[in-house]
Amino acid sequence: MRAVQVVGYHQRLELTEVSEPEVTGPFDVVVRIGGAGVCRTDLHILEGQWAEKSGVTLPYTIGHENAGWVHAVGAAVTNVAEGDKVIVHPLITCGLCRACRSGDDVHCTASQFPGIDTAGGYAEYLKTSARSVVKIDDALEPSDVAALADAGLTAYHAAAKAARRLRPGDRCVVIGAGGLGHIGVQVLKALTAAEIVVVDRNPDAVKLAETIGADHGVVADGSHVAAVLDLTGGNGAETVIDFVGEGGATRDGVAMLRRAGDYHVVGYGENIDVPTIDIISTEINLIGNLVGSYNDLCELMVLAAQGKVTLHTQKYPLDRFQDAIDDLDNGRVRGRAILTP
Amino acid sequence: MRAVQVVGYHQRLELTEVSEPEVTGPFDVVVRIGGAGVCRTDLHILEGQWAEKSGVTLPYTIGHENAGWVHAVGAAVTNVAEGDKVIVHPLITCGLCRACRSGDDVHCTASQFPGIDTAGGYAEYLKTSARSVVKIDDALEPSDVAALADAGLTAYHAAAKAARRLRPGDRCVVIGAGGLGHIGVQVLKALTAAEIVVVDRNPDAVKLAETIGADHGVVADGSHVAAVLDLTGGNGAETVIDFVGEGGATRDGVAMLRRAGDYHVVGYGENIDVPTIDIISTEINLIGNLVGSYNDLCELMVLAAQGKVTLHTQKYPLDRFQDAIDDLDNGRVRGRAILTP
Amino acid sequence: MRAVQVVGYHQRLELTEVSEPEVTGPFDVVVRIGGAGVCRTDLHILEGQWAEKSGVTLPYTIGHENAGWVHAVGAAVTNVAEGDKVIVHPLITCGLCRACRSGDDVHCTASQFPGIDTAGGYAEYLKTSARSVVKIDDALEPSDVAALADAGLTAYHAAAKAARRLRPGDRCVVIGAGGLGHIGVQVLKALTAAEIVVVDRNPDAVKLAETIGADHGVVADGSHVAAVLDLTGGNGAETVIDFVGEGGATRDGVAMLRRAGDYHVVGYGENIDVPTIDIISTEINLIGNLVGSYNDLCELMVLAAQGKVTLHTQKYPLDRFQDAIDDLDNGRVRGRAILTP
Amino acid sequence: MRAVQVVGYHQRLELTEVSEPEVTGPFDVVVRIGGAGVCRTDLHILEGQWAEKSGVTLPYTIGHENAGWVHAVGAAVTNVAEGDKVIVHPLITCGLCRACRSGDDVHCTASQFPGIDTAGGYAEYLKTSARSVVKIDDALEPSDVAALADAGLTAYHAAAKAARRLRPGDRCVVIGAGGLGHIGVQVLKALTAAEIVVVDRNPDAVKLAETIGADHGVVADGSHVAAVLDLTGGNGAETVIDFVGEGGATRDGVAMLRRAGDYHVVGYGENIDVPTIDIISTEINLIGNLVGSYNDLCELMVLAAQGKVTLHTQKYPLDRFQDAIDDLDNGRVRGRAILTP
Repeated sequence: MRAVQVVGYHQRLELTEVSEPEVTGPFDVVVRIGGAGVCRTDLHILEGQWAEKSGVTLPYTIGHENAGWVHAVGAAVTNVAEGDKVIVHPLITCGLCRACRSGDDVHCTASQFPGIDTAGGYAEYLKTSARSVVKIDDALEPSDVAALADAGLTAYHAAAKAARRLRPGDRCVVIGAGGLGHIGVQVLKALTAAEIVVVDRNPDAVKLAETIGADHGVVADGSHVAAVLDLTGGNGAETVIDFVGEGGATRDGVAMLRRAGDYHVVGYGENIDVPTIDIISTEINLIGNLVGSYNDLCELMVLAAQGKVTLHTQKYPLDRFQDAIDDLDNGRVRGRAILTP
Repeated sequence: MRAVQVVGYHQRLELTEVSEPEVTGPFDVVVRIGGAGVCRTDLHILEGQWAEKSGVTLPYTIGHENAGWVHAVGAAVTNVAEGDKVIVHPLITCGLCRACRSGDDVHCTASQFPGIDTAGGYAEYLKTSARSVVKIDDALEPSDVAALADAGLTAYHAAAKAARRLRPGDRCVVIGAGGLGHIGVQVLKALTAAEIVVVDRNPDAVKLAETIGADHGVVADGSHVAAVLDLTGGNGAETVIDFVGEGGATRDGVAMLRRAGDYHVVGYGENIDVPTIDIISTEINLIGNLVGSYNDLCELMVLAAQGKVTLHTQKYPLDRFQDAIDDLDNGRVRGRAILTP
Repeated sequence: MRAVQVVGYHQRLELTEVSEPEVTGPFDVVVRIGGAGVCRTDLHILEGQWAEKSGVTLPYTIGHENAGWVHAVGAAVTNVAEGDKVIVHPLITCGLCRACRSGDDVHCTASQFPGIDTAGGYAEYLKTSARSVVKIDDALEPSDVAALADAGLTAYHAAAKAARRLRPGDRCVVIGAGGLGHIGVQVLKALTAAEIVVVDRNPDAVKLAETIGADHGVVADGSHVAAVLDLTGGNGAETVIDFVGEGGATRDGVAMLRRAGDYHVVGYGENIDVPTIDIISTEINLIGNLVGSYNDLCELMVLAAQGKVTLHTQKYPLDRFQDAIDDLDNGRVRGRAILTP
Repeated sequence: MRAVQVVGYHQRLELTEVSEPEVTGPFDVVVRIGGAGVCRTDLHILEGQWAEKSGVTLPYTIGHENAGWVHAVGAAVTNVAEGDKVIVHPLITCGLCRACRSGDDVHCTASQFPGIDTAGGYAEYLKTSARSVVKIDDALEPSDVAALADAGLTAYHAAAKAARRLRPGDRCVVIGAGGLGHIGVQVLKALTAAEIVVVDRNPDAVKLAETIGADHGVVADGSHVAAVLDLTGGNGAETVIDFVGEGGATRDGVAMLRRAGDYHVVGYGENIDVPTIDIISTEINLIGNLVGSYNDLCELMVLAAQGKVTLHTQKYPLDRFQDAIDDLDNGRVRGRAILTP
């Protein structure tokens, strides 16, 4: 089959012919790819940022946001059958460790990450596990939802976790109205009655956020911390979800927080650097967020099927992968770039 | 009555004669002091560290860890009566704001803090509120429990919050086996079956902690992070409670944490400075802890009455306040220094 | 002032002249009534059903769903001022017991209940407490929201509690699409993405519920348990909120429940009679619901101000109280009957 | 191998020779039995009470409380290896349904129950799954802990769930000081500082409970509801765990409950029959409890290894199964009867 592979760091990806993945284990599932998201992480992989962390051997097939149709299943697979339309959770997890047994599979002590440390989905077929495939509604198309598999799932996880503490009258600040923030706002809108304040440097992104559910938009022009404090009666917001995590976002985000508030870290880049006296005197919480669990992905697919979470996509046939990469790198993608068969 | 007052920063406290506090409001409670804790914060007040923050006008009576007997009550007070033995919650709270109405009175938007921003308990009498007095068991003496009013309450609050997530088989690291850590270990022992690992620079403090419930003691000699990782199968602890917050404790504490673990900030001094990538890739939480609520203090008094939380005290008559201050400043107090009538 | 009083059980209410309530205690608040809900409980009071329980001395002024404007306040009141538009929480609570200190004021050990055991709001003025008044948005009118003070608050409390466990993809059955169910559906819609199934004997009520947010309507015609099981893939619903509690609703409600599901009791009348083997083999929970707390009422007022919860009302001037009572008794009230000044 | 089988209802069990179970699936685990608990449920099976519910085909091997050593494992098993000492969770669960993916494996939609609906552990070997085996501490012996696999796990699950709401100063009533209650008291003691009140008809059982952690013992002689109310200041207990569920225990248990309290149903037999008005006016919860999850069993094994939960056992070689059954049936077993190889 055709697959797009990393052949060297600081080199271009290459489309090549590799053998199709086959079912060898009892829980294996081979998925015929209907859509594979092209993600900024893919650019970072090419820059070698993940080389040491993943320990992957080159060449290998990239692509960690995948959806498609079940092509073949192992003998023990009972939750999907050939032909089922599915989205693929980014991790393959063991199902036996304490984290897996708690529903917290993201912290599996023996997981694999296709597209990062093993063969991914820029290809015609992908091998994953029964534990990683979620059937999707008939009304959804793999190429439309593929990007929800990782970016969307991360946003869902953070927003849903934040929502559990939000009550009517509370305010939730969303820092960053890009891909993740866009999903985050829609999820918050679906799950809470809290007031949503979106902060972004890009006035167009702020405006767009207001059309999909943000109650207030604030352009991050230097006066944005003050603007949020104004919107919250000078007290700050009960919750901040920071999808940016760099360029001063963490400092600003903490400054926007009310006493006893929750600051959710999602985006990353800079250090969080806060005096302990400030943390204890206001009793705030700084909460990490990784990608969502399998059940989180099921829930997100419900919201997608209900039309409560949608995503703009820009599609490219698999052999135009370089255009997708270039467009992403040059800021020419609106929404998410998706490779299709 | 006699009262010990701050008359100037970087000056010695002075014992002077002031008028007795009187009941003027409906919820006022005047307490005859049976014990007033001498706390490191009192030294910081004298150094002027709280001058700006508290905005207090000098001279004023210091002392924020108080217990005694109810001397007089306002017309609307129904929860205590003259003669009742009580411990005094450090804050006077409004009872009407959303935080107070949630049981989260520590975040009251209109609180007073006797001993910090209004007259405290280094005196014969203290004026507080019905909302701040907790009746204590007959078996307890005010001078024995006074130090639980603030230092102990802070430790209780953090340990009880941490305990809610701890399950049998989990490990909780307590950094700092001084006054607060000592209470924290006893509270954890009473509320959880988790394994308790105590870390302190002082080998004697570590040994003492082992006698009151710590399952493992680790001397912080540079190899302590590795020692904790060893004790936790290389994975780190589910929970760390840091009662130190300076001298590198925060960096060490975060390094001892398991994926999805909780790091509780209680002690303060240095900055927490952690890469956001580390927070999200392990999905850890950094949790602030302030003093406990009124109900927390009630619960701590139950543990004290049950003999599950005890505290070593060193008592000084009120007019020997300077000896108490000097002993504390020079590390000559074992447990807590208490002024008595 | 004019007030409508219970002068005897099984007798008609009487409009009479009584002295205006006055501020005597520090936290007293006198409210000029803008709207007083006429509730089925008022009919039960007249039938003597509450006589023993309340122990009230006749004659007394009835009416427990009140809203209006602050007319006078006691010396210690800081949360409202003369002229403020307010809704009145049905209970006057002590603020000092453990329940009050936990934010669970409904379980106050020393509460009063105006309109039930002391003078209520079928009058020109009502005396309540600072702890019971919630300022409402400028856009809301006392006579429009009065019925949210008790009936609406009960529905909010149950629906918001249920919502905390509901996730996208879950189903919540609402039994009873009358006054409380109507509010319950709107609250669920505002707080969750769960699918809402409404069950009622009245096809018109079912239809109405579908227009305000119910995803499915089921007429309770004997086949309704089967219909709900069909809608839930044969598994039953994660949550049932029963606003009826009589006529077999509890048996049906439990039969509609999924394993590990929550059955919320709100309406009352019959006994819940379930074999313990059924409770343990499916591990279901039967959850009681009383009226909401003060903070619940604040949250409901946020939803009302946002237009997410509305209520149809039928207004009567105070001196036409008998028409309101008669209309309610004879099923001629659409929505809620409200007495106005 | 030798196995004890049900050959007909209302007939005696028979020891017979059957073929050893073999690994056929990837996650199969064959356990060499070290101890098999003889449980009252086994008597009920023989009486035919489970015939219809389980749908099992006779003859089959009985025994659902098992522990021993891993004898053989399927190709995909990574969590145990041949020779490991293990206790066996009573259910074989699928690992793929939403309940399993939430850590709530007890509600697996495709589970098997060895000893009930497939071959159990009154035998030399038992076939189970990797998902059902928990390694136990070196210090524990299979024949000592086998009875914790089901009876103990049920008590742990209920007590640990109850403990999450219990605070110092709260009271927890345990109804029934037999096998499960005995474990329940030890678990509560390990996990909470709440006061434990044990109620049982048997004065010796009450006395025994006091030696293992109960703070108060009450003999159920007709005055026991009043006695519990006395012990709780007339208010009732925050929590009741009912391990009996028959003979009036449910009525008494609900009567012992404080406002907003939790009544945990564990034992079964009679109906719970409570007026809905009582449930809502006090806002109590009736909470079902089934056996614990896999992670619950891991936690219970931690407590067992720490010596915090112990169980008296009476051992019988496998071929003396009839003596064990007879002793149990005639009340001659102290603690639990265990079959050993």
